[in-house]
Amino acid sequence: MLLLRIDRERDIPLYRQVVDGVVRLIDGETLKPGDRLPSTRALARRLGLNRFTVYRSYQELLALGYVESAPGSYTTVRKRLRLAPERTGGRGAVRWDAAASSRSRSLYDAFGRYLVEPAPPEGGADLVDLSRLEPDGRLFPIKDFQRSVNQVLSSMGAEILRYGSPQGYAPLREYIATRLRIHGVSASPRNVLVTSGAQQAIDLILRLFSQEGRNVACEAPTYSAVLPLMKFNGFNILDVPMRDDGMDLDYLERLVEGERVAFVYTVPNFQNPTGITTSQEHRERLLSICGRSRVPLIEDGFEEEMKYFGKAVLPIKSMDERQVVVYIGTFSKVLFPGIRIGWVTAHEECIERLTAIRRFCDLSSSLFAQAALDRFCRDGCYDRHLKRVHRIFRRRMETALAAMDRHFPRTVTWTRPAGGYTIWIRLGVRVDDALLRGAMTAFGVSASLGRFFFSSGKRDGHLRVSISALNEAEIVEGIERLARLLRAVTKKHGG
Amino acid sequence: MLLLRIDRERDIPLYRQVVDGVVRLIDGETLKPGDRLPSTRALARRLGLNRFTVYRSYQELLALGYVESAPGSYTTVRKRLRLAPERTGGRGAVRWDAAASSRSRSLYDAFGRYLVEPAPPEGGADLVDLSRLEPDGRLFPIKDFQRSVNQVLSSMGAEILRYGSPQGYAPLREYIATRLRIHGVSASPRNVLVTSGAQQAIDLILRLFSQEGRNVACEAPTYSAVLPLMKFNGFNILDVPMRDDGMDLDYLERLVEGERVAFVYTVPNFQNPTGITTSQEHRERLLSICGRSRVPLIEDGFEEEMKYFGKAVLPIKSMDERQVVVYIGTFSKVLFPGIRIGWVTAHEECIERLTAIRRFCDLSSSLFAQAALDRFCRDGCYDRHLKRVHRIFRRRMETALAAMDRHFPRTVTWTRPAGGYTIWIRLGVRVDDALLRGAMTAFGVSASLGRFFFSSGKRDGHLRVSISALNEAEIVEGIERLARLLRAVTKKHGG
Repeated sequence: MLLLRIDRERDIPLYRQVVDGVVRLIDGETLKPGDRLPSTRALARRLGLNRFTVYRSYQELLALGYVESAPGSYTTVRKRLRLAPERTGGRGAVRWDAAASSRSRSLYDAFGRYLVEPAPPEGGADLVDLSRLEPDGRLFPIKDFQRSVNQVLSSMGAEILRYGSPQGYAPLREYIATRLRIHGVSASPRNVLVTSGAQQAIDLILRLFSQEGRNVACEAPTYSAVLPLMKFNGFNILDVPMRDDGMDLDYLERLVEGERVAFVYTVPNFQNPTGITTSQEHRERLLSICGRSRVPLIEDGFEEEMKYFGKAVLPIKSMDERQVVVYIGTFSKVLFPGIRIGWVTAHEECIERLTAIRRFCDLSSSLFAQAALDRFCRDGCYDRHLKRVHRIFRRRMETALAAMDRHFPRTVTWTRPAGGYTIWIRLGVRVDDALLRGAMTAFGVSASLGRFFFSSGKRDGHLRVSISALNEAEIVEGIERLARLLRAVTKKHGG
Repeated sequence: MLLLRIDRERDIPLYRQVVDGVVRLIDGETLKPGDRLPSTRALARRLGLNRFTVYRSYQELLALGYVESAPGSYTTVRKRLRLAPERTGGRGAVRWDAAASSRSRSLYDAFGRYLVEPAPPEGGADLVDLSRLEPDGRLFPIKDFQRSVNQVLSSMGAEILRYGSPQGYAPLREYIATRLRIHGVSASPRNVLVTSGAQQAIDLILRLFSQEGRNVACEAPTYSAVLPLMKFNGFNILDVPMRDDGMDLDYLERLVEGERVAFVYTVPNFQNPTGITTSQEHRERLLSICGRSRVPLIEDGFEEEMKYFGKAVLPIKSMDERQVVVYIGTFSKVLFPGIRIGWVTAHEECIERLTAIRRFCDLSSSLFAQAALDRFCRDGCYDRHLKRVHRIFRRRMETALAAMDRHFPRTVTWTRPAGGYTIWIRLGVRVDDALLRGAMTAFGVSASLGRFFFSSGKRDGHLRVSISALNEAEIVEGIERLARLLRAVTKKHGG
């Protein structure tokens, strides 16, 4: 007789409660190997549950290896195999920190710093999180995507659940190539490698060039997660200061004349973290510096399609007659990141070499995800979504900037992005990051500390605000709290 | 007036023909920026097409950026942005071969060798392909998977389209941990890192230990795609010969006593390529060698659940009291590879370090794919599928071995696997691989050349046969052709 307690008030699904109860009885050896479980019908009656609920519990217990059953026979407790004692905590024979390479130890340290979650504010109020650069889930076109998924599973089935080509699903590469023409980039599907998001695109490019001690030139500040990865791949990072109009090109020019540089990394649109978009002239000159010195230019266009103010600026890749630009794109910041689809566009020879690395490091992106996304895009859902998101974020960004104008103290300055999600704030006075972090907890607001965006990790007095996941009311509330915080810390520290 | 030619006999969907036709007219400048397209109704009537077909074409043209339309207004040809001239073929300013690191050049060369596709036979007959190690798509449980996908999209929606945790979707990690208990492995979700297939698991482990010139010990022969990746990560591969019962442990013991070895890599079940499964005693001794010398043991259990003959053998990880084993698993060889889900199970400290690398190299696996797979497994679909596949492959493997017994010449020997898909054939006489390759084309059959599975790449006279994607009739046909080939080449070469 099974002693199970089912509580309909609890937050745990009923079938799960049955599973947990039976597992406890088996683990506690009340139920022994070979013991019969009641039939689903009998147990359902006894517990006052739907029979399907009990059936589902038994399926789960089968899946977990706790019970077994032969067709048409009782379900019985399975003879368990000898378990090695659970010792997740204990120290084993290998010292993993010593066994790991020194580079991976540094990466691990960097990872630890990233894991610091915004602390919830004191007093129980909700935190307004202006730190996350992740699209607003409330805007995801779930229904459209679900239709696309069903279309491809129904029409193609097994074809899209196989191994895919390392370079990517051909129709999607074709779609991406054609779409790039909107942005003036001439590319064929042969110039496109589909990746698991822009992050993998960056990693593959780094691995292509990786050689101990090679230099790379990088905007300072820049996308924070690229810095530990560059170091992990053995690169020596040469900072190029960001000015109001983008990377300091006089500085860069002297740099590539004086040093061997493996490549230059740039984010020309709504740069992460500054939000700066460079001008046509800036782009042309940057391209010409790289072209003349034959240095590959990595153009990270991760938010290319999020320009919602002002006139279009073409990607540097669109002017790339000498083919030095390796362009990175992604669906993660406009559509949704959970499918992990980005890409690289470059000279065919470069793409082939990146594809080779990709083939050995994880074979390919999910063919299933690529086919569903391709269907979604070709049915016009991506364009419809993009229009909607532009309309919404134009308002959200205006709201954010207006709230800053209204509430921020005079010593503080900030950028006015033409698109994307991030705004870069200069406090104007030296405020220690540790103090800022504490103040954010006190004021119930979180933004990203500036130091994460510098390779030295030692530049205080900046904050990055992201409005990507917040609606207008939340943005106003967050900016107001941030304004109170800024008034407090800048006053205290000489503002 | 649009001049479009629609041909219902062609293999191209009608909507696609409309798209192609309009694109040609725009690219050829017959249609100019601002020109109106007919209404969908009018064009459908004129071409004798369903109106929805035309609508879909227009959506695609919108997506491709060729046309634009405002709500309630005509569709017009879009003002195209200046295109850089298409020059995918031409040589640019960067010499990519020279810019790439020397390691990545070697990987690229290896990739080129992998790309050699089995040639179709002369005379037009179909090739029987015994080379691919990919599950049979005809067995994929598409309907069940589609149901799981719909369940998670309907019930969780945006939640599973966000960025996921780098370590993996918690419920799936819990499912994997619990499932490992069936195999005697005691693991908690904290000991599990979800990866994009077993290949990424291997890559992450290599990157954790990677330091120029470090030694690794590897079965010879071994999984072919791990060898170039080890070299790419700077490792020096030390071959440990495979004997009939697995890796030569006397040899390994001397090796780890004499040399510093970063880790040992082993595939204990239905080893790729030999099909050999090691005994309990072999596993215990291998583990004890690694434990004593504190050398991590990478256990690749990529087909753990494909044992369909004989009694169960527990993974080495199940006896891993000293926690030196880093275990790799995957859903790709049993369920389907198109979702790219595998995992690593190891000591928590090791998992944390691997997770850090993972976070920077591609952030996480697709949350969407993980959630769908989790639902699929918990609903019992994975277990049902596994039972079915076991039944089918037990017969297929018996069929393959019986056909070899009947038809292969006496000089040839081969392994008798207890599960999985691959059989390893020793020709017994020296036959050059180039000759074998030619013969395969002539006889209309393809198998994998043995040399790919040796780090030196220079061992002739072996073939790996995979029955993973073929039914019994196809297997018999393939083995018969291979037998004719073997009779021809072994007779010619001294057999």
